[in-house]
Amino acid sequence: MATDPATTGRTGPRPLEAFDALAARLGAFPAAARLQAPLDADAQRRAEQHQLRLTKPPGSLGRLEAVGAQLAGIAGAVPPPVPRPAVIAVFAGDHGVHAQGVSPWPQEVTAQMVSNFLAGGAAINVLARQAGARVVVVDVGVASDLPEAPDLLVRKVRPGTADLAAGPAMTIEDARRALDTGAEIAARLVDGGARCLVTGDMGIANTTPAATLIAALTDRPASGVTGRGTGIDDRRLHRKTALVAAAAARARREHGTDALAILAEVGGLEHAALAGFVAAATALRVPVVIDGVISASALLVASRLAPGVERGVIAGHRSVEPGASAVLDELHLAPLIDLDLRLGEGTGAALALPLVEAAARVLAEMATFDEAGVTEK
Amino acid sequence: MATDPATTGRTGPRPLEAFDALAARLGAFPAAARLQAPLDADAQRRAEQHQLRLTKPPGSLGRLEAVGAQLAGIAGAVPPPVPRPAVIAVFAGDHGVHAQGVSPWPQEVTAQMVSNFLAGGAAINVLARQAGARVVVVDVGVASDLPEAPDLLVRKVRPGTADLAAGPAMTIEDARRALDTGAEIAARLVDGGARCLVTGDMGIANTTPAATLIAALTDRPASGVTGRGTGIDDRRLHRKTALVAAAAARARREHGTDALAILAEVGGLEHAALAGFVAAATALRVPVVIDGVISASALLVASRLAPGVERGVIAGHRSVEPGASAVLDELHLAPLIDLDLRLGEGTGAALALPLVEAAARVLAEMATFDEAGVTEK
Repeated sequence: MATDPATTGRTGPRPLEAFDALAARLGAFPAAARLQAPLDADAQRRAEQHQLRLTKPPGSLGRLEAVGAQLAGIAGAVPPPVPRPAVIAVFAGDHGVHAQGVSPWPQEVTAQMVSNFLAGGAAINVLARQAGARVVVVDVGVASDLPEAPDLLVRKVRPGTADLAAGPAMTIEDARRALDTGAEIAARLVDGGARCLVTGDMGIANTTPAATLIAALTDRPASGVTGRGTGIDDRRLHRKTALVAAAAARARREHGTDALAILAEVGGLEHAALAGFVAAATALRVPVVIDGVISASALLVASRLAPGVERGVIAGHRSVEPGASAVLDELHLAPLIDLDLRLGEGTGAALALPLVEAAARVLAEMATFDEAGVTEK
Repeated sequence: MATDPATTGRTGPRPLEAFDALAARLGAFPAAARLQAPLDADAQRRAEQHQLRLTKPPGSLGRLEAVGAQLAGIAGAVPPPVPRPAVIAVFAGDHGVHAQGVSPWPQEVTAQMVSNFLAGGAAINVLARQAGARVVVVDVGVASDLPEAPDLLVRKVRPGTADLAAGPAMTIEDARRALDTGAEIAARLVDGGARCLVTGDMGIANTTPAATLIAALTDRPASGVTGRGTGIDDRRLHRKTALVAAAAARARREHGTDALAILAEVGGLEHAALAGFVAAATALRVPVVIDGVISASALLVASRLAPGVERGVIAGHRSVEPGASAVLDELHLAPLIDLDLRLGEGTGAALALPLVEAAARVLAEMATFDEAGVTEK
């Protein structure tokens, strides 16, 4: 059916001109927030109807069919374009809260792992190669200065946040700049040809701000959204949970439901940038696959600042971190992969990429009952 | 580490000579059963130890790490070879029990879908292309004669089974021939270069013999292992469940725990061939990824006739069919994908292939803490 002009409408991303013009006036993140729009319901319906004509029992491809219809709704086209090439953007930052002993890893590991990403030796590099995706690293807040590298984008808002346990992690202006940075990166990657964007993160101690954001924005108890991160012991988990509870309570007391203020109070620079990245991807009608708890907390922020953003989001996997599941529940997202991962970097999302591509290809490539001469029941 | 001779042992499949010599004497399936052996425990342990040295928190790649160690144990090598190329063998057969109204689809759809596979228009073709795998179709028991085609292997044991509700589905000799056929196909595909084998099936009404095999071999109630197959209504499900209960009870009464006799009494030709296929794959130390309930019932048969076969098996996905989960529980297998699929053909297994490849590549390609200069906690 790929050549039937009656069933193909707009394909691919929204033209960047509108975004760029608005971004020049308002800033990249406010532009992305402004451009959120419902999925194309007609394309979704046509995708669902087409799936009923394909040579398989109705509904038998399960959740893959829902992803196919979502991709059609994002692109406004049936079949939707295969979301390829994909680019995984790993946003890296450091965290003042590291001083509270919430992680056993030294803070310099953030920068060391960035070097590992750029050398191609980390898990995300391996899984990206497997998926045929590219990895770029964005320094939005690493504490140290990093040597230049072709796949490193230096967009440092500040060299790490302040300790969120002791006071605001950053200023409102820092948070705005990080949101804009993430949105701008997404737009430039789409401009460069990316047709699927994938969220990744690196930042020692960054599950602490993620859990605090989720607790503060959903009003769930800290114990229900705080996990062991890289695998901390009971003692550290106890301390981390208490810290998350106190910081989330402070953020709610001081800022109510003001998501931007809460982001500045208890978030991280990579969390803010990822929120902007996701919002710009959906504004530009490019599918965005999110990873684990850092990405989920960023999506939650984005959903408060750019309502409806979740319509264009595909949940790559269910992280072991309880906060990730809390966000998926809150936003009614069902993850594609559930393999007990707790690594971050974008690894869970990278593993989901072939499934997302498969969902699009089913709509584009499968024969209908008529075409194949197969009798219907 | 790929070049460290101290950590690489045997790689790839067992030489075919031993299998072929034994098969010439005993038959292909008995040879496969005889050649079952434990995984290489030393290679598994070395894989687990190596995973602890890779630049990630210990255990943070979750179930992918277990698959990596299993692949090392199958190959007897660390890192294990990437299980590629993969070949998906779709075993097709018809079923006399179709006459009992257990499926709303006409029986001729089996042959029509085989044509669809050979033309490249079915779901399994699309998902195989996405995964970079080849599809071959094996006619072990389609009721009608099929036109010749390059990717069709005609190994028809008989043109469909007899009605298992009325009496034995096939003779013991038929079951033996189908087991041998499946084992022989696996060996020839490995001989042709396949380094991962994937189970697929096509046969209108074939979830009925699958459920009956599972009920008879596990002594579970029919209601716990009988599903809606392609999506039957309550009336048909009621009839199907009663039929499964009666046939499983008869099989147990007449044959006790004699798995070969039970296979002949209530099985299908593709089920038998798949049991042989899986057993030969594991005998030859080639990873085999299984699909849904048809494959699971075949694996269950294989596990009774060739004990330990499940050690070399990777469960591709969790089918909606309850019988599939019953077998996974029984054999302590955890599926990689869980997306509410109920299509068969090998689709769930095909979707899992990139995950299996990723598990091997993590061991081969990730940097260690030492190599990357990353500080350990």
